[in-house]
Amino acid sequence: MIDGHEIIRRCRLLAQLTEEPCHITRTYLSRPMREVHRIVGIWMEEAGLRTRVDAVGNLRGVAGTPPSLMIGSHLDTVPHGGAFDGVLGVMIAVELAGRHPDYPLEVVGFSEEEGVRFGVPYIGSRALVGAPVMDAPVLAAIRDFGLNPDEIPDAVLGPEIRGYLEFHIEQGPVLESLGLPLGVVDAIAGTSRWDLRFEGRANHAGTTPMDMRHDALAGAAEWIGLVEHLGSTTAGLVATVGKIDAEPGVRNVIPGVVRATVDVRHAMDEVRQRALNVLLDGAEHIAARRELKVEGEALLDQPAAAMHFDWVAKAVQAAGYPVHHMTSGAGHDAMILAQKVPASMLFLRSPGGISHHPDESVLAEDIDAALAVGSELLRSFVG
Amino acid sequence: MIDGHEIIRRCRLLAQLTEEPCHITRTYLSRPMREVHRIVGIWMEEAGLRTRVDAVGNLRGVAGTPPSLMIGSHLDTVPHGGAFDGVLGVMIAVELAGRHPDYPLEVVGFSEEEGVRFGVPYIGSRALVGAPVMDAPVLAAIRDFGLNPDEIPDAVLGPEIRGYLEFHIEQGPVLESLGLPLGVVDAIAGTSRWDLRFEGRANHAGTTPMDMRHDALAGAAEWIGLVEHLGSTTAGLVATVGKIDAEPGVRNVIPGVVRATVDVRHAMDEVRQRALNVLLDGAEHIAARRELKVEGEALLDQPAAAMHFDWVAKAVQAAGYPVHHMTSGAGHDAMILAQKVPASMLFLRSPGGISHHPDESVLAEDIDAALAVGSELLRSFVG
Repeated sequence: MIDGHEIIRRCRLLAQLTEEPCHITRTYLSRPMREVHRIVGIWMEEAGLRTRVDAVGNLRGVAGTPPSLMIGSHLDTVPHGGAFDGVLGVMIAVELAGRHPDYPLEVVGFSEEEGVRFGVPYIGSRALVGAPVMDAPVLAAIRDFGLNPDEIPDAVLGPEIRGYLEFHIEQGPVLESLGLPLGVVDAIAGTSRWDLRFEGRANHAGTTPMDMRHDALAGAAEWIGLVEHLGSTTAGLVATVGKIDAEPGVRNVIPGVVRATVDVRHAMDEVRQRALNVLLDGAEHIAARRELKVEGEALLDQPAAAMHFDWVAKAVQAAGYPVHHMTSGAGHDAMILAQKVPASMLFLRSPGGISHHPDESVLAEDIDAALAVGSELLRSFVG
Repeated sequence: MIDGHEIIRRCRLLAQLTEEPCHITRTYLSRPMREVHRIVGIWMEEAGLRTRVDAVGNLRGVAGTPPSLMIGSHLDTVPHGGAFDGVLGVMIAVELAGRHPDYPLEVVGFSEEEGVRFGVPYIGSRALVGAPVMDAPVLAAIRDFGLNPDEIPDAVLGPEIRGYLEFHIEQGPVLESLGLPLGVVDAIAGTSRWDLRFEGRANHAGTTPMDMRHDALAGAAEWIGLVEHLGSTTAGLVATVGKIDAEPGVRNVIPGVVRATVDVRHAMDEVRQRALNVLLDGAEHIAARRELKVEGEALLDQPAAAMHFDWVAKAVQAAGYPVHHMTSGAGHDAMILAQKVPASMLFLRSPGGISHHPDESVLAEDIDAALAVGSELLRSFVG
């Protein structure tokens, strides 16, 4: 039996397996991912699991026959990421397997959640729900790694699996701000992502009077104010403009074209859709008043996924920790697995709310709490 | 004697002398600039001028001894510019010399107004007022062009020159909107240019609630609104944010750092300075409320230059055209010459307000009007 400190040590050890020295960067089917498979595979076997790497590169370990519960998270990272996003959940799953010998479970370390290598996230988990990504470059990478794409159907979740459980750092500041170690995830928010293009007229910044301008940036700035206002006044909504650029982008020229993105998330799809409509209508309204043109392009319309949270909440309570329900604003493999089986998530507090960054961390005591809740979950699981 | 149509033809011919095929790009002491000197030199000599290229690359032509009035503009262009910005003023000056043989004038085609090649504008005109740009790369370019930097002092304006006159396209929409061919420039606006840097905290767009954000872009957008508002509510002021970028600039990450520029212009330096202070204080105020940091860097503080406008206004009236007084929001060589001699400018209507663009144009009838006013100016000049 190992504790939170040892799990942190394991995560930091795996962080050394990276494509870039001095950074944590481990993408889909990269060379360091093979080393991760080897080392995590050893820990899995020490925990009594029979291991294999499936045809999309997920590391899987089975105990008991047949397994009824799958526990896991992902082993890939964003470029210049942290040591705990994903990996921590796999380490906790392995330790739970070790603490509960012969429990019918399967541990999974997903090969691709972040979508860095091909711009396509969830390649690992999609294969498990029978919706594999079959793009030619992905299949070529699978072959290059020494795996056989013909065996992808064998990666599908066994019919005996009745539930999926994922431990993950929160990646946000909420639990820390409440002084709580753990959070029960009720739902994974749905996400709408759009690119907008405001078009006005590029003109000389010195010779064009203010009332004769069609300044694409002034219009976009007004709209960014609307995005922030709507996010701030709609319960549970987050709305973000993350990317902006102005053309020609010269100090003495009024911007003629501005491109800006918006990312809108909510646990309820109809609230998200309504908010998105307000933002798109608002952009039209602002553009019309300023005699700009605006065009939008939808990039993502990912519905929310309800989590099976009662079971988790009861286990948190049974383990003696306060229960805090929350929405995950980030997507997770659990969202994909939820298409096939009841899926559940437990969040661990993220110090400073920091994630996708080398300063990402986790408290050993919170991992101990998660392990205690995990044992309660295994005890109470009725798959 | 040639007319507006012929002058347009000459400008379009010179536009063929470019560093980039299919675009008009002619920078300081470039190969096509030498060809321009040759062709314009021929037209100057046909107009009775004795020509030379001075040591900073200005093409100069003298008639009468000694000349008392200098008339000119610049021969360089911005990258992908238009055919009339600068060049038109030189063509009008040459034609005025032709129409007034033996009038004691000097025509000048400045070598560098736009500042494209070395990021330093007015290299040509600065040498005439005894404030030459002596940066090593500029001197090297002068030598490479076959000129002798030791002779730069000889480029200084002769003591007999008592005035400078420049014809230039407006580069803005005002004259067109008023239905007027010509504008009398009362002053060239001063310019303040600053770069601002808003720093907040980059965080996950899904997991960070709205009330826990320090979104650098939302702060910058609020400030852009202030810039536009102040410009719109202060008579004669123009204020522009032309350039913006957000870091990390990813759709699902709250921007941690935003850099934005501001360009503020007014004919009165104290109005400009007061407006700038409002914008800088406003940025501080917005940043403080949002718990962002803001830093600013001054890039330019160019004072306004008063033009000698009475003489021009009377000539416009004498030629039978309506007099419209205006401020030039753009800088011009006349602003530099004004440091030594009374300087005057006459603007020609810019169709569509378009400049620094291939669609830049000018009406032949407006050139004819400018030539008529030019003849009145020569008649009434008391240098």
